[in-house]
Amino acid sequence: MKKLNAGLIGYKFMGRAHSNAYRQVNHFFNADAYIVPRALCGRNQTAVRAAAEKFGFETYDTDWKSFIKRDDIDFVDITSPSNMHMEMALMAADEKKHIFCEKPLAMTAKDAKTMWKSAKSAGIVHQVGFNYRFVPAIRLAKRLIDEGKLGSIYHFRGLYLQDWIVDPNFPLVWRLDKNVAGSGAHGDINAHIIDLARFLIGDFKKVMGMKKTFIKRRPIVESMDGLSASGISSGNMGDVTVDDASIFMAEFKSGAVGTFEATRFATGRRNGMSFEINGSKGSVKFEFERMNELQYYNASDPSYQQGFKLISATESEHEFAGAWWPPGHIIGYEHTFVHEMYSFVQAICSGLKANPDFEDGYICCKILDAVDNSIKEGGWIDV
Amino acid sequence: MKKLNAGLIGYKFMGRAHSNAYRQVNHFFNADAYIVPRALCGRNQTAVRAAAEKFGFETYDTDWKSFIKRDDIDFVDITSPSNMHMEMALMAADEKKHIFCEKPLAMTAKDAKTMWKSAKSAGIVHQVGFNYRFVPAIRLAKRLIDEGKLGSIYHFRGLYLQDWIVDPNFPLVWRLDKNVAGSGAHGDINAHIIDLARFLIGDFKKVMGMKKTFIKRRPIVESMDGLSASGISSGNMGDVTVDDASIFMAEFKSGAVGTFEATRFATGRRNGMSFEINGSKGSVKFEFERMNELQYYNASDPSYQQGFKLISATESEHEFAGAWWPPGHIIGYEHTFVHEMYSFVQAICSGLKANPDFEDGYICCKILDAVDNSIKEGGWIDV
Amino acid sequence: MKKLNAGLIGYKFMGRAHSNAYRQVNHFFNADAYIVPRALCGRNQTAVRAAAEKFGFETYDTDWKSFIKRDDIDFVDITSPSNMHMEMALMAADEKKHIFCEKPLAMTAKDAKTMWKSAKSAGIVHQVGFNYRFVPAIRLAKRLIDEGKLGSIYHFRGLYLQDWIVDPNFPLVWRLDKNVAGSGAHGDINAHIIDLARFLIGDFKKVMGMKKTFIKRRPIVESMDGLSASGISSGNMGDVTVDDASIFMAEFKSGAVGTFEATRFATGRRNGMSFEINGSKGSVKFEFERMNELQYYNASDPSYQQGFKLISATESEHEFAGAWWPPGHIIGYEHTFVHEMYSFVQAICSGLKANPDFEDGYICCKILDAVDNSIKEGGWIDV
Amino acid sequence: MKKLNAGLIGYKFMGRAHSNAYRQVNHFFNADAYIVPRALCGRNQTAVRAAAEKFGFETYDTDWKSFIKRDDIDFVDITSPSNMHMEMALMAADEKKHIFCEKPLAMTAKDAKTMWKSAKSAGIVHQVGFNYRFVPAIRLAKRLIDEGKLGSIYHFRGLYLQDWIVDPNFPLVWRLDKNVAGSGAHGDINAHIIDLARFLIGDFKKVMGMKKTFIKRRPIVESMDGLSASGISSGNMGDVTVDDASIFMAEFKSGAVGTFEATRFATGRRNGMSFEINGSKGSVKFEFERMNELQYYNASDPSYQQGFKLISATESEHEFAGAWWPPGHIIGYEHTFVHEMYSFVQAICSGLKANPDFEDGYICCKILDAVDNSIKEGGWIDV
Repeated sequence: MKKLNAGLIGYKFMGRAHSNAYRQVNHFFNADAYIVPRALCGRNQTAVRAAAEKFGFETYDTDWKSFIKRDDIDFVDITSPSNMHMEMALMAADEKKHIFCEKPLAMTAKDAKTMWKSAKSAGIVHQVGFNYRFVPAIRLAKRLIDEGKLGSIYHFRGLYLQDWIVDPNFPLVWRLDKNVAGSGAHGDINAHIIDLARFLIGDFKKVMGMKKTFIKRRPIVESMDGLSASGISSGNMGDVTVDDASIFMAEFKSGAVGTFEATRFATGRRNGMSFEINGSKGSVKFEFERMNELQYYNASDPSYQQGFKLISATESEHEFAGAWWPPGHIIGYEHTFVHEMYSFVQAICSGLKANPDFEDGYICCKILDAVDNSIKEGGWIDV
Repeated sequence: MKKLNAGLIGYKFMGRAHSNAYRQVNHFFNADAYIVPRALCGRNQTAVRAAAEKFGFETYDTDWKSFIKRDDIDFVDITSPSNMHMEMALMAADEKKHIFCEKPLAMTAKDAKTMWKSAKSAGIVHQVGFNYRFVPAIRLAKRLIDEGKLGSIYHFRGLYLQDWIVDPNFPLVWRLDKNVAGSGAHGDINAHIIDLARFLIGDFKKVMGMKKTFIKRRPIVESMDGLSASGISSGNMGDVTVDDASIFMAEFKSGAVGTFEATRFATGRRNGMSFEINGSKGSVKFEFERMNELQYYNASDPSYQQGFKLISATESEHEFAGAWWPPGHIIGYEHTFVHEMYSFVQAICSGLKANPDFEDGYICCKILDAVDNSIKEGGWIDV
Repeated sequence: MKKLNAGLIGYKFMGRAHSNAYRQVNHFFNADAYIVPRALCGRNQTAVRAAAEKFGFETYDTDWKSFIKRDDIDFVDITSPSNMHMEMALMAADEKKHIFCEKPLAMTAKDAKTMWKSAKSAGIVHQVGFNYRFVPAIRLAKRLIDEGKLGSIYHFRGLYLQDWIVDPNFPLVWRLDKNVAGSGAHGDINAHIIDLARFLIGDFKKVMGMKKTFIKRRPIVESMDGLSASGISSGNMGDVTVDDASIFMAEFKSGAVGTFEATRFATGRRNGMSFEINGSKGSVKFEFERMNELQYYNASDPSYQQGFKLISATESEHEFAGAWWPPGHIIGYEHTFVHEMYSFVQAICSGLKANPDFEDGYICCKILDAVDNSIKEGGWIDV
Repeated sequence: MKKLNAGLIGYKFMGRAHSNAYRQVNHFFNADAYIVPRALCGRNQTAVRAAAEKFGFETYDTDWKSFIKRDDIDFVDITSPSNMHMEMALMAADEKKHIFCEKPLAMTAKDAKTMWKSAKSAGIVHQVGFNYRFVPAIRLAKRLIDEGKLGSIYHFRGLYLQDWIVDPNFPLVWRLDKNVAGSGAHGDINAHIIDLARFLIGDFKKVMGMKKTFIKRRPIVESMDGLSASGISSGNMGDVTVDDASIFMAEFKSGAVGTFEATRFATGRRNGMSFEINGSKGSVKFEFERMNELQYYNASDPSYQQGFKLISATESEHEFAGAWWPPGHIIGYEHTFVHEMYSFVQAICSGLKANPDFEDGYICCKILDAVDNSIKEGGWIDV
């Protein structure tokens, strides 16, 4: 079978998720190619070597520039902090390597557009890591909407609620530094629900938002590689330069209206991504912490039998679910990465466009930027 | 409009629920008669007078025998402890008064049968207080089953979980005294799910059970009327003579199988009555603490859309629900009594049989007795 | 016992709820006065007579002006459409009658202020019908917040989702006419969550919103009294002059941020009022269709035991709950009116301020108006 | 690092789950040895070769006897149908290979005891596949019980509800043939909740049960290897020789009582394993289709704050959970196998007893047999 050599940049949270995905695609899906975990890249030699061994990579590198140029990798998989995405992706496109890049695609819509254009000109396959598109229950929502089961859409209501920095002593990690992360909850998690809204109900027309930073200064810690939350406290405090919460209202081109809220200050909510969509004929509800389930309301049910149905998207008819276990045997977070990586492999092998690709990543950044502008202007901004 | 003078015996928990039901029938339902709260009966003069005033009764009595013979009452409503039911009901039947009697109908199936036969010969309307039959969501379950939506029934699974006597210092109230209460969880709450099983899926064939008393001795308290949990501790301990938990397996005449569990030792479960019914074409689930909701699974839904639907039985099409509020505005525990009292009034006015009547009360006692016999015999007993 | 003669204006949905509350206060609460359902007022003689009989009123009237002046009523209870509130309340204040008035208090903040000032000068007791403040589970949320269990509040997230006009053929009832109703979802249901937010976490600082009317023309029907949804279709269409959905973002004086969404186009949601509040030490969640339950997250639980706890606010310790049934036996929608009417009676008898009073009604209108202004201005408006 | 060569027998459902576990242990856990997927064994050469390639095995075999004797495997992992377990395990013990064996350990308690004794004498590490012991949320239940948080246990209530053979046209697969499977729902799924009850609350004292076969004859199909549900219908019908449902009551040595129900006829329930445990100080509830969650009720919470808490067992403090993803990012069914395989590896490396081992497998079979005897005898049987 055809082999695809993977070159992965980054070995933290996303690095683990992606390298796991390579293995699981090979073992659970009938993909058109076999993914070889060829090379891993990271700045710290000790750490990257240990990660390469743990994750099963054949080799590793510490210099991303020479890494991207290696002859023995077919695609570059970028999971570094956001501020490195563009430079890496532009070089990979130059090298005609296919690219998988984590979200948010770039620090600004302008950069994201550059990345998209460059990837497009290079003729490579490019995909952005909106992994929630690959949840079977969300695919089911998409299917119901595409089949017209919800009719005309009136409302999208999306939340992404986390609580990992509620403690004011939580340190000033890179995700709280605008220069590295670009933004806070805004680009990190509101980006996910923005993309889902587009995926499910279509294009945005205009937005108006607000942001909030509740805790403005936090302790600085010295960590091995500057990326980790653990480490020795320096005794100093530094400014949080990103938002703790990002909220906005939207109108879609279809006339539907939407609300979006992302926060890292929703105490008790660990990873509470959820949405609800109401249409003229039905509605769906989804919560990520019960990601195998979709609730579906069908307004054409007999009146005495109406209600939200709790569907376990674990049947063989549910997209991606059939590759795993019998109905009622749930899958978890990491499976979303397996599904997106499988789709990436299939796109490469077929020569077709990946979905979501850099254009989707760019449009998401455009919406994020429009929200930022609406905050600056104090009013509605067209997307 | 026709008036029906009510004579209510008992003014505690059930007395409050029944007297409230009289008022609410008058104001929310278009019944064929208006219920007059004519007279209240209780042993303690001070207490019964206060209750009569609070509940809106015109008069009160302390002697139940002369009370039942009063010319100015049309029906006798019995909410006294179980050991008084038979004597009171027999006299009321002699007096040709219609009778509403709380469950369990009697201390034994034999007594219950005597009550039923006597009421039947007297030609009066007789009803037993299985109020859970009058929950709109349970009526919906009944409707779905009667319409064949569940197909052939395979399983009934009933629970009634409470925790009000988990504390070993909870005193020896009348409900823990076999001479007054007849039994513990068995007749008090397993009776409810037995009746629901009959109501919903039909007759029992045979049973086999077990009972358990976890706390065998409890403090004796002296209370004003011997019925209350509060009072001055006597410093003495007495034997608990009823079961804390009652569990049994059953086979129905249809071939379905059932499990029944009632306990007062399910810590954290205040009034956890629930059941699930599985048939060849569908299933239903119900939980009393969310009594407005029924879950319904329809096996003929398209495979990718299958799941339990959460129906709020608050639509005007749902039996009894239309008399109250708009959809989604829930009703509560007390409404079950309003519905059963409305049905009782309609039976009296129409001359038709009440449902559930003393025969249903008797059959429930027969099943309770059969479980007791199965425990004595250590094996299956035909009902 | 002291008696209070009630004079109720209106006999539809709210009229039923209020008249029921009078009876239930008398029978379930130990109030300092007994409420006498003295007189009912409505425009249509046949209908008001029937309602008076059904609801148990001693007399009725069809002219509200003479009605308010009657000597035999102690308080006026206003449940007419919003456009009548001010005129009626001003006259009642002139007459030194205590006033209970449904929400929204008035068509504009200006009118509401006039009503408040007039009631205040008259020295009467005045209360506004924010009945959701009287849900025991919401009182529990209030208690937890007041006890500091949630710490500093960061987020309020309120929804009021209904679906009763999703059908484009639903007729042009008075609630869809700006001249009678003032606004649509905005004043009808967003008002409820605005009031709850104030009640629970304090004053608003600024708001920015949007409104949407999805279905702009609807069939006109001729009904007996112009208020009902049923009636003979006129064959004509008319303009919907109110909003179908009202959405806004808010900042509170405390620094907390809030989102508010009210809609009549959330298919499948019959009466989906819900909110979530996140603080530095904990969070609460509430859904009205399961109104007996509050979810509470305590961040100081041991880390391996953290989670949202589902509390059934049916214990005797839960405010108002002890007047009803044992734990786990739920109450329903109508009970909120009983609780508010009980509180109104107690305020009258004690001479203390009612809560919520016309000032609360006025502030709510001020916030509603501020949202309207923010829409006109396209930006943030200080409250 | 030390390597352990795995020899896996069977490549269907359990074969996929076990081979996945090998890989994932290597990549997510810090085990004391690395598992090498050395050899796969199955009867059908074409199928086993394909599976070996898919699952990543280096070699394969079709003769289990020579397979077990191979020098290059360190442990034998048995996932064949139940009727083959004993013969295979006895040979593996003779060969001094460590053994992992799927449940039920054997067709009878007698055989299971022979297997246990033989493994024990051989001095090998032996483990039985009760994978549900390895669910983090169930470990949390265990922890709470062991810490005394539930006090004295009164009730265990276990259900295992499936619906995969409700359709009477579902064919007569090996799991419905007593000679191959031993029993139906009884040994297949009631075995799981029996083991969990033992694991969580201790030893059984006596049992009394019933079994039911609802559909007594089913179509015979010819399949490639006699094990699969798919295949060409033979046009003939055959007898179902196992139970569709298995129900029993139990008393534990501690005095607690239990109910157990396993069925393949609970329409709408795909893999509905659930249990509830009530103790004097608290309770826990678990449902497998939401396997990341445990509900915990603490009776010592302040009375106005009591309720079941929904704990997501995805924190680093939750056993096994820390090896995966951040809190709130759930895991799935397959992870239970990874955890049990990790434990097996650690037992082999440390020389300590595995848990659960063949003795646990034997005791479970003894309880299954006791239930069968209670059915034959029609009464209680001591375990």
